[in-house]
Amino acid sequence: MAISAYPHWDEGDLRMGEKAIGRYPVPDLNDLPEDIKERVLEVQEKAGFVPNVFLVLAHRPDEFRAFFAYHDALMEKESGLTKAEREMIVVATSNDNNCQYCVVAHGAILRIRAKNPLVADQVAVNYRKADITPKQKAMLDFSMKVSNDAGSICDEDFDRLCSHGFTDEDVWDIAGITAFFGLSNRMANFTAMRPNDEFYSMGR
Amino acid sequence: MAISAYPHWDEGDLRMGEKAIGRYPVPDLNDLPEDIKERVLEVQEKAGFVPNVFLVLAHRPDEFRAFFAYHDALMEKESGLTKAEREMIVVATSNDNNCQYCVVAHGAILRIRAKNPLVADQVAVNYRKADITPKQKAMLDFSMKVSNDAGSICDEDFDRLCSHGFTDEDVWDIAGITAFFGLSNRMANFTAMRPNDEFYSMGR
Amino acid sequence: MAISAYPHWDEGDLRMGEKAIGRYPVPDLNDLPEDIKERVLEVQEKAGFVPNVFLVLAHRPDEFRAFFAYHDALMEKESGLTKAEREMIVVATSNDNNCQYCVVAHGAILRIRAKNPLVADQVAVNYRKADITPKQKAMLDFSMKVSNDAGSICDEDFDRLCSHGFTDEDVWDIAGITAFFGLSNRMANFTAMRPNDEFYSMGR
Amino acid sequence: MAISAYPHWDEGDLRMGEKAIGRYPVPDLNDLPEDIKERVLEVQEKAGFVPNVFLVLAHRPDEFRAFFAYHDALMEKESGLTKAEREMIVVATSNDNNCQYCVVAHGAILRIRAKNPLVADQVAVNYRKADITPKQKAMLDFSMKVSNDAGSICDEDFDRLCSHGFTDEDVWDIAGITAFFGLSNRMANFTAMRPNDEFYSMGR
Amino acid sequence: MAISAYPHWDEGDLRMGEKAIGRYPVPDLNDLPEDIKERVLEVQEKAGFVPNVFLVLAHRPDEFRAFFAYHDALMEKESGLTKAEREMIVVATSNDNNCQYCVVAHGAILRIRAKNPLVADQVAVNYRKADITPKQKAMLDFSMKVSNDAGSICDEDFDRLCSHGFTDEDVWDIAGITAFFGLSNRMANFTAMRPNDEFYSMGR
Amino acid sequence: MAISAYPHWDEGDLRMGEKAIGRYPVPDLNDLPEDIKERVLEVQEKAGFVPNVFLVLAHRPDEFRAFFAYHDALMEKESGLTKAEREMIVVATSNDNNCQYCVVAHGAILRIRAKNPLVADQVAVNYRKADITPKQKAMLDFSMKVSNDAGSICDEDFDRLCSHGFTDEDVWDIAGITAFFGLSNRMANFTAMRPNDEFYSMGR
Repeated sequence: MAISAYPHWDEGDLRMGEKAIGRYPVPDLNDLPEDIKERVLEVQEKAGFVPNVFLVLAHRPDEFRAFFAYHDALMEKESGLTKAEREMIVVATSNDNNCQYCVVAHGAILRIRAKNPLVADQVAVNYRKADITPKQKAMLDFSMKVSNDAGSICDEDFDRLCSHGFTDEDVWDIAGITAFFGLSNRMANFTAMRPNDEFYSMGR
Repeated sequence: MAISAYPHWDEGDLRMGEKAIGRYPVPDLNDLPEDIKERVLEVQEKAGFVPNVFLVLAHRPDEFRAFFAYHDALMEKESGLTKAEREMIVVATSNDNNCQYCVVAHGAILRIRAKNPLVADQVAVNYRKADITPKQKAMLDFSMKVSNDAGSICDEDFDRLCSHGFTDEDVWDIAGITAFFGLSNRMANFTAMRPNDEFYSMGR
Repeated sequence: MAISAYPHWDEGDLRMGEKAIGRYPVPDLNDLPEDIKERVLEVQEKAGFVPNVFLVLAHRPDEFRAFFAYHDALMEKESGLTKAEREMIVVATSNDNNCQYCVVAHGAILRIRAKNPLVADQVAVNYRKADITPKQKAMLDFSMKVSNDAGSICDEDFDRLCSHGFTDEDVWDIAGITAFFGLSNRMANFTAMRPNDEFYSMGR
Repeated sequence: MAISAYPHWDEGDLRMGEKAIGRYPVPDLNDLPEDIKERVLEVQEKAGFVPNVFLVLAHRPDEFRAFFAYHDALMEKESGLTKAEREMIVVATSNDNNCQYCVVAHGAILRIRAKNPLVADQVAVNYRKADITPKQKAMLDFSMKVSNDAGSICDEDFDRLCSHGFTDEDVWDIAGITAFFGLSNRMANFTAMRPNDEFYSMGR
Repeated sequence: MAISAYPHWDEGDLRMGEKAIGRYPVPDLNDLPEDIKERVLEVQEKAGFVPNVFLVLAHRPDEFRAFFAYHDALMEKESGLTKAEREMIVVATSNDNNCQYCVVAHGAILRIRAKNPLVADQVAVNYRKADITPKQKAMLDFSMKVSNDAGSICDEDFDRLCSHGFTDEDVWDIAGITAFFGLSNRMANFTAMRPNDEFYSMGR
Repeated sequence: MAISAYPHWDEGDLRMGEKAIGRYPVPDLNDLPEDIKERVLEVQEKAGFVPNVFLVLAHRPDEFRAFFAYHDALMEKESGLTKAEREMIVVATSNDNNCQYCVVAHGAILRIRAKNPLVADQVAVNYRKADITPKQKAMLDFSMKVSNDAGSICDEDFDRLCSHGFTDEDVWDIAGITAFFGLSNRMANFTAMRPNDEFYSMGR
């Protein structure tokens, strides 16, 4: 199946580019279950546009609900990690997984959360050389291990993170976010999810 | 943090080995939110024991709920893939990710779903030589690509699956299950989740 | 050459499944050189069936003799490693090499040698999380290095093993078994050697 | 254990350099079992020196016997592959495995067998650019697959070799030699086996 | 040597951030050989700032001269590749090599050359999903092979590029640019070359 | 484009084999720009033959000039590294990149520079086991990291080299040579540059 799904939205206020936003058909807003429609409209009101992940995943309402519930459980909750740090994990993991959607979309969020127009591009390409703290680099070292070699995680990894001041709950947050975006990156790559044009310039 | 969490259950009917089941503390059944407690008791009734994934993830109720909602959305729904085929994806992906919990637990389920005592071990070690159909091997080839190189998925991959009779919705199911267990494998490895002893001999 | 070699045995007491046991023709027992025929009958008497490795390799009598002489020199001799430990090396190496025959057959032997129905599956998927000693994990760490990066073996590797109580002769045993099953795994994969059904449930 | 085994030979006619030839003690010629002593003296007579593999492996007489029996079964027998072609397999596999002993020693033999002073260095570094036939390149492509990814060998690999004129027995020879030198490379790397100085200039 | 080289410039018009721009000392503009000083001032006049690669490499004047001569020979000459296409090669190669300096600096140039604010981020993370032509994707496929597996380049690679309309001279350009930025990426990573802040927002 | 460029030289004193020396046309000596013709004749006088790298790269005069200027800036200058050590870096890097031309040509130079007929083959296949000093092995360890994982170079790498007595300028030399031959290896592989027959036996 070639990438050919051009969405047709009745509502003029949902800004759509002329490029396909993914391999699968995008449902009409009015055909969506009420709770999903509500979430889509809510994010549109807040962001000024609907990030394509909401449209692409709406093709599967049950997965949509579970996906965003998981997302919110990790990204919106109280945590020893700042929201900017959580976005660093997303951006570093996503570039390592060659996921265009997540690097571009979460790069934008990282710039905003960190109030820093440079950090997202730095973290995406090589977090070891980014303007972040040694503690944050240790966090991302662990994130890379969770992403690429989780079977070898050992006590020494926990000790190293602990020596940087991370609690066991923080470590769970790092691993959980990395693992969740491992799922997200694979879904975005598989569905050929297109980043919205708006993300590229946000927070610069 | 060393692996040292020994669970203490008040309910004698929850069978616990003497080995730690994970790095993180396991909550007491009675301290669990009602909906989670209910799900744990339900699975215990059905399986005769509580698979450790329910106990380890109960440490984080919101993630627990999202995890199992996502699991059910993929594994319990109507699909062009049989339940045995879905478990094949889980077992092949999980061995590739060196995830002991998922290979052992879902290997048991695969044996039962497929009514075949050999197929789980075959698929885990090398699905290319397993007693499965060429269509199922093509399914697992794609699953390996989603797991290891999702950024390179292209139209030809969809065409190949289509030529074996898979629909676009089937392809989403294959990718979705692979991606979800990518998350699950990383969580199980990171938490040092221990497979219950019961799984090893089920369905043999 | 497709996998299509169905063996035809005159002797009814050699139990054969209906599946091909490998890509190459399997010689008739009565056509085998006397010494090989003897070894085959001996193992059949002991095990109750003829493991397919004996049948597949009998296609090449000289290689058969050298193969089993090498096997016995490492696996049957006196050693600082227990017989169960030697089988752990085989199982871990063989899963890393995606060798279905050796994981299944030697997994069975490991369960029997270790008198432990769980350890083989644990070691196959991720020995770092198996119910084995730290010394045994160090043994398998070295085994993985011999298997995947022998050119980088250095004094520090010997020192680490020594600190766990291994002698230089033990280290040779670990490396020798890993190297020999590196050969065995490649032969089994190349010949599409099929594990006998009997192995799957032995020792569980 | 550092590399420190300096051999002490009573027999002046066994030329020994002053460098250690391996990590393990080298037995005195007169302490060797008669059959091994005989083989050592025989090769010395033929080559004018004793290749170190004979000295290093003599530390383990049973493995020595099996090793050379296996070697001879593949390298000395009648085959559809010329002796030079068999050495090409050894040299290409051994450089891929970073095995100094086997590249240097079998590079010398390849130069002699092929009566070509250039081919060994060419094949070692990049056989795709060596002065060999397309059929020989196909042979080495398969050899690399046996060495690095035997679990994925499939019917198409056999078909490709067949289209170049290889028989099924030839394919076994290619795979067998690759697998055997996989063992040999790991043993030589692990024992830090030193190539004899004589090999470097032979056949140039 | 930690990253600690803070440049001290007499000329107020050379804008320097407060972050070190690399591991090695940056020479004072007035201490530079005349030809290098001239090039630095020239680029400053044109760009409005001095890209750090000029400052970091000025530490070695002879290498500086050769580096920029090589750069210009490939990037400034007449070519079948547009200037934007040449920058695509740089950006894709540099992200694959985790080179922050080159992705950020040449990403800016790509946006300008292509008059497209999105394409640089798209090509950096996953050129397969970028808004570029199939011909350009084939160009970048080949670039990745030159970068990661040049030893396997074969006639089929040339044929494929030819079928997309590339001439042999174009292919040299693709390979040459990829190879040159292989050098550049390694130098930038090794010297911890910092991208100038100005690059991040250029062309957006 | 198949490898089919047979050079036709008017000057009988330029010895050409009958094999193509590369994929691209080799210009006639008399058609070369004067400075390049001069360099070619100069190297011919010195070496007794024209190394093919001069002929293959002469196809692109500007790149030729920059290439050799860069080469000379690193390989001919005063340095804390001996000329033999610099050639060790070239040989180790080039075998790791499967570059036949550079291993054969620079192997010859290394033998001559080191006045040692064995060291080039040793370093090519596995420098860890070569007859070189621990300091030289540390140099090559770093060279391998520059070649394969420059993005992870960190202060600890500099500290390790410093502890062996290397200065920061020496480290630049190691990295610069590795990076330059990264370029050279890719160009030689891409152009199918053939090593001159003369190199194989030089210095043995």
